Amino acid sequence: MEITVSIDAMGGDHGVHVTVPAALQFLKAHPDVNVVLVGLQDAIEAELKARHATVGPRLRIHHASEVVAMDEAPQLALKNKKDSSMRVSINLVKSGEAHACVSAGNTGALMATARFVLKTLAGIDRPAIAKMLPTMHGTSCVLDLGANVDCTPEQLYQFGVMGAALSSALNHQDRPTVGLLNIGSEDIKGNEVVKEAAELLKASSLNFRGNVEGNDIYKGTVDVVVCDGFTGNVALKASEGLAKMLTEILKDEFSRSWWRKLIALVAMPVLLSFRHRMDTRRFNGASLLGLRGIVVKSHGGADRLGFYYALEQALEEARSGVLHKITETMADHVVASKAAAERT
Amino acid sequence: MEITVSIDAMGGDHGVHVTVPAALQFLKAHPDVNVVLVGLQDAIEAELKARHATVGPRLRIHHASEVVAMDEAPQLALKNKKDSSMRVSINLVKSGEAHACVSAGNTGALMATARFVLKTLAGIDRPAIAKMLPTMHGTSCVLDLGANVDCTPEQLYQFGVMGAALSSALNHQDRPTVGLLNIGSEDIKGNEVVKEAAELLKASSLNFRGNVEGNDIYKGTVDVVVCDGFTGNVALKASEGLAKMLTEILKDEFSRSWWRKLIALVAMPVLLSFRHRMDTRRFNGASLLGLRGIVVKSHGGADRLGFYYALEQALEEARSGVLHKITETMADHVVASKAAAERT
Repeated sequence: MEITVSIDAMGGDHGVHVTVPAALQFLKAHPDVNVVLVGLQDAIEAELKARHATVGPRLRIHHASEVVAMDEAPQLALKNKKDSSMRVSINLVKSGEAHACVSAGNTGALMATARFVLKTLAGIDRPAIAKMLPTMHGTSCVLDLGANVDCTPEQLYQFGVMGAALSSALNHQDRPTVGLLNIGSEDIKGNEVVKEAAELLKASSLNFRGNVEGNDIYKGTVDVVVCDGFTGNVALKASEGLAKMLTEILKDEFSRSWWRKLIALVAMPVLLSFRHRMDTRRFNGASLLGLRGIVVKSHGGADRLGFYYALEQALEEARSGVLHKITETMADHVVASKAAAERT
Repeated sequence: MEITVSIDAMGGDHGVHVTVPAALQFLKAHPDVNVVLVGLQDAIEAELKARHATVGPRLRIHHASEVVAMDEAPQLALKNKKDSSMRVSINLVKSGEAHACVSAGNTGALMATARFVLKTLAGIDRPAIAKMLPTMHGTSCVLDLGANVDCTPEQLYQFGVMGAALSSALNHQDRPTVGLLNIGSEDIKGNEVVKEAAELLKASSLNFRGNVEGNDIYKGTVDVVVCDGFTGNVALKASEGLAKMLTEILKDEFSRSWWRKLIALVAMPVLLSFRHRMDTRRFNGASLLGLRGIVVKSHGGADRLGFYYALEQALEEARSGVLHKITETMADHVVASKAAAERT
C-alpha cells in the first residue's frame, strides 16, 4: 500500500529547517511513500530551494496560513487557528488524503486539535500519548506520558488495550504482556485508582501480568507499561535527564587529561556504537493513541534525525494497521464482557 | 559530639553478613563514633567472630529476639514483633541511647514502626522518604519516594520544609532552592493538588522556584524536588532501571570482540572512575524525615559498601542537627503565617 504522510512543517523549535530536510531523507529511504508538507508556502519553498529539492508527485506543499506557537494555550489554538499547519495536517488525515500525520508542535495543542478533528475510537474515553522505550532486550510501550493527568481505572484499562495494540502492531507480537506501573509488585500497593485498574485488567482478555515497578520499564519485564500521564511524564523525563547526565559524565571522564583523550580516540568505535544504541533520537516518536487516525508527535527540540525517526514511526503504524487492531481488541472486549455478563 | 548509631543488624536481604562488616568499616573510619548492633546475639557474635572482631566500649550488641521479614505486612510487624531488631533499634533512638538508627529492613514496617515509636515533629502530618540524588553539579534532595501514595497540598508543602532542612544540613546551604515536580514548568500544569501546593510553597518563606520537570532532578535545577510518594518512587526506580541498562550496554559494547576487550583493558581506569561516579551504592541512604529522631533506610539488597554509605548518611544527619533545622523552619513558618494572618 502506498502511504502518504502529512507533516506539520512549521511545528517544533526549528520549524522548516528540521521538518523539510527530514522529509527529504524520509522520501529517499522509502520510494513508495508520499509526503505533504503543510505550512507557509514561501517558507517551505525557500527551505526546499536551499536543499536543492523541488516538489513533485511524491512531495506536495499544502499551504496553511497560520502557525501554532510552542507556548500557545491549546484551547486558544483550537478555537482561533483553523488554518494552522498543525490543524490542516490533521485535517488531511481526517479526509483520507494522508494515512498519518507528524508534528513537532505544542503537545497540548496537537492533542486538543487531533481529538477535536479526528474524535476517539469506539470505546476509548480519551487519547493517550505512547512511546516505545528501549529495554535490555528490545522495546517496551509506555503510556500515558502526559495527556491525562488524572485517570479513572477504566481509562488505565483502555490504555492497556491501546498499548497492547501498538506493541502488537509495531513488534509483530501476538499477545503482548501488559503491566500496571505501581510502587510495589504486591496487589495491596498503590492508590485506589491503580488497585481498581488492576482488577479491570485482570478480568480482561489482555495478557496482564500484574503490577510492575519503575525499573521494570527498562528491564523489559512486560511489553506494555500502563500508567497515568503525570507519573509517566515524570518517569520519562527523569530518565531522559539521567541519560543526559551519564553521557556528560562519561564524556567528562574521557577528557580529563591528554592521556585519557588518547584512550577515548582508541575507544571511539566502541563509544560511538554505545551512543548509537542509547541515542534518544531513535525513540523520538510518540503516538497519540485512541484517535480515529494516526498522529505522531516529535519532540519540539528534535533535530533532522530525530524528526526522521518520528516519520518512520508514523509509517510503521500506518502500514501495520494499528487503528484496526485497537478497534478489533475493543470490540472483542465488548463481546467478551457481554458474554461474561450473560453467564452471571 | 560523640555519636552513637543503632543498627538493625538483621534487616535486609543479607542480614548480619552485610550489616556487621559495614559497621566494622564504619567504626574504623570514625574513631569518635559508637555502634550498637541490634538483633539475635548468637548470629551477630558469630559474624563478628568470622570477621575477627570483638565487642568493646565502641561496639555493643543489644539482643533482640525477633526479626521482621522483608515481606511482612507493616501493621502486623508493628503489632506482633515488639522485640524485633528493627523496633529495638528505633527504641534506642527514642530513649536517647542512640542518635540515629539505620535499617535495611522492610520499608513499610520501618516507616510504620518509626512513626509509632518516635512520632512526627510539630507541624508535620506524615513522614516522608527523602534521598540525595546525584546531579550534574552535586546532589539534590528528592522527596517523597514512596511513603505517601496520596498527598494533600499541605503535605507537599511540609515535604518542601523537610527537604530544605535536610539539604541545608547535609550540603551546608543557607537557603536551598525548592522546586515542585510537575509535567510542565507553567503554573497551569498538573492536577489540583500540585497547583494548590505551589500556592502554599509560593506564600512560604522557602526559596521556592516554581515547577520543575523530571529531567530537572538530574540537571540539578533546584536543591530540593518535592513530589508525592507514588510519582517519586516511580521516577527513582525508573532511573535506577535505566542506569542499570546503560551500564549493561556499555559492558556489552566493550566485550563484543577480543579487540574491544583489549580496548576495555586500556580504558579501564576511565571506566572505573566513571563507574565510581555513578555508583548507586554511594547514594544508598534514604532518610525517613519528619520524625522525632533520625532513621535512615538502606536498600534491602545493599552490599557492605552500600550499607556503609547509609551509616555515613545517618552520621552526617546526626552531626548537622537536621531535626533541629526542621523544627526551627516549621516554627518560623508558624510565626510568619500568624504575622501574615494578623496583617490581613
